[in-house]
Amino acid sequence: MEAVKCLSGGASLEANAESVLRAITPSLDPTRHKGQAGKIAVVGGCREYTGAPYFAAISALKIGADLSHVFCTEGAATVIKSYSPELIVHPILEESYNISGVNDEGKRDISKKILSEFDKWMERFDCLVVGPGLGRDPFLLECVSQIMTRARQSNVPIVVDGDGLFLVTNSIELVSGYRLAVLTPNVIEYKRLVQKVLGCDVNDQNTHGELLSLSKQIGGVTILRKGKSDLISDGEKVQSVSIYGSPRRCGGQGDILSGSVAVFLSWARQCNLAAERESTISRTNPTVLGCIAGSALLRKAAALAFEHKKRSTLTTDIIEHLGQSLEAISPVS
Amino acid sequence: MEAVKCLSGGASLEANAESVLRAITPSLDPTRHKGQAGKIAVVGGCREYTGAPYFAAISALKIGADLSHVFCTEGAATVIKSYSPELIVHPILEESYNISGVNDEGKRDISKKILSEFDKWMERFDCLVVGPGLGRDPFLLECVSQIMTRARQSNVPIVVDGDGLFLVTNSIELVSGYRLAVLTPNVIEYKRLVQKVLGCDVNDQNTHGELLSLSKQIGGVTILRKGKSDLISDGEKVQSVSIYGSPRRCGGQGDILSGSVAVFLSWARQCNLAAERESTISRTNPTVLGCIAGSALLRKAAALAFEHKKRSTLTTDIIEHLGQSLEAISPVS
Repeated sequence: MEAVKCLSGGASLEANAESVLRAITPSLDPTRHKGQAGKIAVVGGCREYTGAPYFAAISALKIGADLSHVFCTEGAATVIKSYSPELIVHPILEESYNISGVNDEGKRDISKKILSEFDKWMERFDCLVVGPGLGRDPFLLECVSQIMTRARQSNVPIVVDGDGLFLVTNSIELVSGYRLAVLTPNVIEYKRLVQKVLGCDVNDQNTHGELLSLSKQIGGVTILRKGKSDLISDGEKVQSVSIYGSPRRCGGQGDILSGSVAVFLSWARQCNLAAERESTISRTNPTVLGCIAGSALLRKAAALAFEHKKRSTLTTDIIEHLGQSLEAISPVS
Repeated sequence: MEAVKCLSGGASLEANAESVLRAITPSLDPTRHKGQAGKIAVVGGCREYTGAPYFAAISALKIGADLSHVFCTEGAATVIKSYSPELIVHPILEESYNISGVNDEGKRDISKKILSEFDKWMERFDCLVVGPGLGRDPFLLECVSQIMTRARQSNVPIVVDGDGLFLVTNSIELVSGYRLAVLTPNVIEYKRLVQKVLGCDVNDQNTHGELLSLSKQIGGVTILRKGKSDLISDGEKVQSVSIYGSPRRCGGQGDILSGSVAVFLSWARQCNLAAERESTISRTNPTVLGCIAGSALLRKAAALAFEHKKRSTLTTDIIEHLGQSLEAISPVS
């Protein structure tokens, strides 16, 4: 019923993204100390991918987080560290090709060590981003499953993107029922998720209803379905963000989004929405607010970057416009 | 006969490069998704060379491709990744010096593994660039021969430059008769190719006729002969691009060209040239259109870079002007 109502009232669902951004962005008070504006960790970076975790982690800082960590393999760590001295990069993950001579017991020891290294840090984080440049190595994904389980036990929110969605689609119990999880699928990842969870193909005639059902079926996990308009639901209602972005589809924009959502949902959880008591914002799930804010800011920054660079626009150019875009909406003073 | 006619009518052969660029450059439609503007892969990067594959791969992105991969050796991969987080770099190739203790069977296993790693990706690519910074290690070149054979079986176009031309000149059967192959020799590489394929020395009195014969002899492979004017032929006719570029001859410009040709020929193959039905453009081989566009854009960008940097102009400076040059000819809206 809800689904049908949503579908018919499409226009009214457009989130007031700028109000959300203004409501959740914390004021910059000189008495605050390091870490209070957000401590984010990205789990990703393997033999093949180093750009994606870097994009997610640096985006978090450029929006205003205080500390941004990356947990990746040793080879990826050297490269990611070289991209920027601003990040804290932990070379703790392992891939099968690197431990091919190790027996099962040895592998269990390695896995245990990875977990204990991660455990030292986890409770400090306001949000994890799992997936950018994670790859699909079975051993690595098994360790990441355990990392997700630990984060969940400690109530650390988790944003899942990229190969993290591959992992979660095949092991939906990792996030099922966890209201602090956000999934950010693109068209193809969404299709796989619908097939796996709802057991049917994507129905373009019932976009909103389907998204509601999907989110409900996973127990209220927030889903940000990326597309021409981004659609966001936690199973209660569907909101959309349609601000004009850029027509460039270069790889890496999804990584900006996951890093941004991580920061904004942390802010939304921490901020005092008392001033918004009468508005719908204060009654909205913080993970949904984080998604609305992340989606809107990426679109604004992409539009600005495209204005300057046109077809040459790359993800790095968009990241350079995140700060200016946020300042335009929610100025520091 | 054709050759003589071409030679005598030199001026009329100048390609209308700007029209070609406008005809093949796809519109940027917000409904398109990641990958549709091009997925390119560069095979190159070894113990000695890392700049060349980077230049080719990043040029593809700066022109407007969505995804750009590099397949190289492990040592080269770390460096190429660190040049830019925008590239996806696969550390899969091996060189003899690194496997000197391995017996023949072991080498066959390594070779098989390289092929199977490459196979996972190949069908996703719109075009391969083989050669920038490839080096001349026999084991590595043998693997690359097999990669080229696979690409050919899957009808993936191949642009061959640098050490890829060394490989192909000695094993012309790799491209012979493959109409989706493009060779981009400079003066010296062209000389070797003529000697090997036509069994004679370069004849400067019959430049066009010789190029036609060479292309025909290799079965209609498109050849872009770089020089003061770039000459392009697929064995049917010869077209030239003489737009003024830059007098700087710093290394790396050929890599920009190979990456650019890869993007443009992919676009030319995909685009709907219906609007050009009455023009010669729609009747021209897409690989030739790709060469014309690539040659023209490089020259435009080199001229712009030289205007700013004069004698200091480097390949990186030219790459920074690719977007602006394309925008001047084929604006996004």
